[in-house]
Amino acid sequence: MSDLLERFRAGERRALARLLSHVENRTPFGIQAERELYPLTGRAHLIGITGPPGAGKSTLVAGLIREARRQSLTAAVLAVDPTSPVTGGAVMGDRIRMLDVQSDEGVFIRSVTGRGRGGGLAPALCAMAHVLDAFGFDLVLLETVGAGQDDVDIARLADTTVLVLVPGLGDGVQSLKAGTLEVADIFVVNKADLPGANQVVRDLRVMQRLMVGAAEQAPILSTVATTGEGIDQVLRAILEHRRQLEIHGQLTERTQRRLLAEARYLALEALADQLDEVLETLPAEDRASLETRQLDPRTLAMRLIERLRLSFPASRS
Amino acid sequence: MSDLLERFRAGERRALARLLSHVENRTPFGIQAERELYPLTGRAHLIGITGPPGAGKSTLVAGLIREARRQSLTAAVLAVDPTSPVTGGAVMGDRIRMLDVQSDEGVFIRSVTGRGRGGGLAPALCAMAHVLDAFGFDLVLLETVGAGQDDVDIARLADTTVLVLVPGLGDGVQSLKAGTLEVADIFVVNKADLPGANQVVRDLRVMQRLMVGAAEQAPILSTVATTGEGIDQVLRAILEHRRQLEIHGQLTERTQRRLLAEARYLALEALADQLDEVLETLPAEDRASLETRQLDPRTLAMRLIERLRLSFPASRS
Repeated sequence: MSDLLERFRAGERRALARLLSHVENRTPFGIQAERELYPLTGRAHLIGITGPPGAGKSTLVAGLIREARRQSLTAAVLAVDPTSPVTGGAVMGDRIRMLDVQSDEGVFIRSVTGRGRGGGLAPALCAMAHVLDAFGFDLVLLETVGAGQDDVDIARLADTTVLVLVPGLGDGVQSLKAGTLEVADIFVVNKADLPGANQVVRDLRVMQRLMVGAAEQAPILSTVATTGEGIDQVLRAILEHRRQLEIHGQLTERTQRRLLAEARYLALEALADQLDEVLETLPAEDRASLETRQLDPRTLAMRLIERLRLSFPASRS
Repeated sequence: MSDLLERFRAGERRALARLLSHVENRTPFGIQAERELYPLTGRAHLIGITGPPGAGKSTLVAGLIREARRQSLTAAVLAVDPTSPVTGGAVMGDRIRMLDVQSDEGVFIRSVTGRGRGGGLAPALCAMAHVLDAFGFDLVLLETVGAGQDDVDIARLADTTVLVLVPGLGDGVQSLKAGTLEVADIFVVNKADLPGANQVVRDLRVMQRLMVGAAEQAPILSTVATTGEGIDQVLRAILEHRRQLEIHGQLTERTQRRLLAEARYLALEALADQLDEVLETLPAEDRASLETRQLDPRTLAMRLIERLRLSFPASRS
């Protein structure tokens, strides 16, 4: 196994792919490797790309990769696959791969499937992003669907978050899930050649007047990802965003906040696992008295926490 | 305060509205009231209505209410508002209210805003549903947006879950988030008068062949919610679904599973709150050493759990 780490350190892509699987699946080796590689991280620019289904995120990501390569920057993508496990349909990573950007050593693309775990996808994604960072990629893009809490959480884990919108979304910008707009450092209105694109830009401007925080001043850019129009400006804005954070001394603070959020997710994930173990040994009479309404869920929750405490390893003191 | 509970028990709607606020905001009185009212619950049919933005869920819900009233059933709605807090746009509850169904004592509609808490919206929604159940509503509808993990979680908290789809969704049925299809007890293809509706039905049939579980046999119904077409069949299928669960002895098991899930959410919510308290008192050097990569997030997570354990109340033994 230490052989795998050596090959990883030597820049071997197959070792990278295997290590990512270990980290994604939380194998003991993966957890160990994560710790060992951690000192090598902190160099990559983490970029979150989010937005509703059909916004053209995969095409935009492919365009950003091409543009990054033109500037001799290497780029890795973690594409969170929103597809239902039963459909067997095309996944985001595949869609990007089809866009001719992978026959290049400076590019790496990986699909990650939603697994519906207690702590959500965020902890596994963070760990995988660290691995890509340690491998030496300049840019690490996290592509998510941007409709649920998970995606907002993931977006918060990036240095720079790009929210991709398009004309013709059901109820427009207003139908976006709470918190989605607020995480944006850059707004991209894609499919800008379609009718209604200007309206989306106007809606965003109106909303920015009501906002407080980063999104208040986030640039609004228009693209036609299929033709590549405007993509160079998006990459420029992304790189400029991180540069500004650095200049104003906010990058350290953001990185700390991001890593703290990651530690919080990992702790919640571990607690959820412990809780599930406790639930598995729940006496049948507790289940029954829930349903006969003699025991309420909140009282049961407090009992579960009590048992959790008792099942923790003994204190070191 | 006990006066409020008395007025609630007497069927006063203003007392219901105030109590719901207490429960939603987790005031000490709300938590107390939840416990006191719990023995009164267990009678209502909990119905989850989920689906992507723009699927016409609010119109469908309004139609279901009208149909329920025709059959002398009372109905309450908890409409989870996906609108970003900064937009100030119309919320789902308002949209339903505008559809003429509220000037009726047998109907109650309430919007619930996403709050992005650690444990998600599910625990607060469950508690509010219990209150409506205790008040005596025959049907309690939970309307959510159906795009994120939150919504899948909420859907799992219903006796019967209806997934509303429409033609013209970006990448079709395949773009639905993992787990969304699997929770459906009934599929509704709304806007069935639009081109592509038959394709959605066919896609669902193909997918059902690949599925295991309830969704495998879920009826697929077509509606035009704006004209009311097909709504009566949806309500019939909803009522029939619960009847079948009862006949086959699955309702008890489902109810137990649902209440256990609720207890799990409440426990996780409480643990997340405790974790946040621990995080607030985190020494500055821990933050700094995260960022300088001397401390990795997983090690910090384990330390947080350790502190959490120490901050728990002393064992009763």
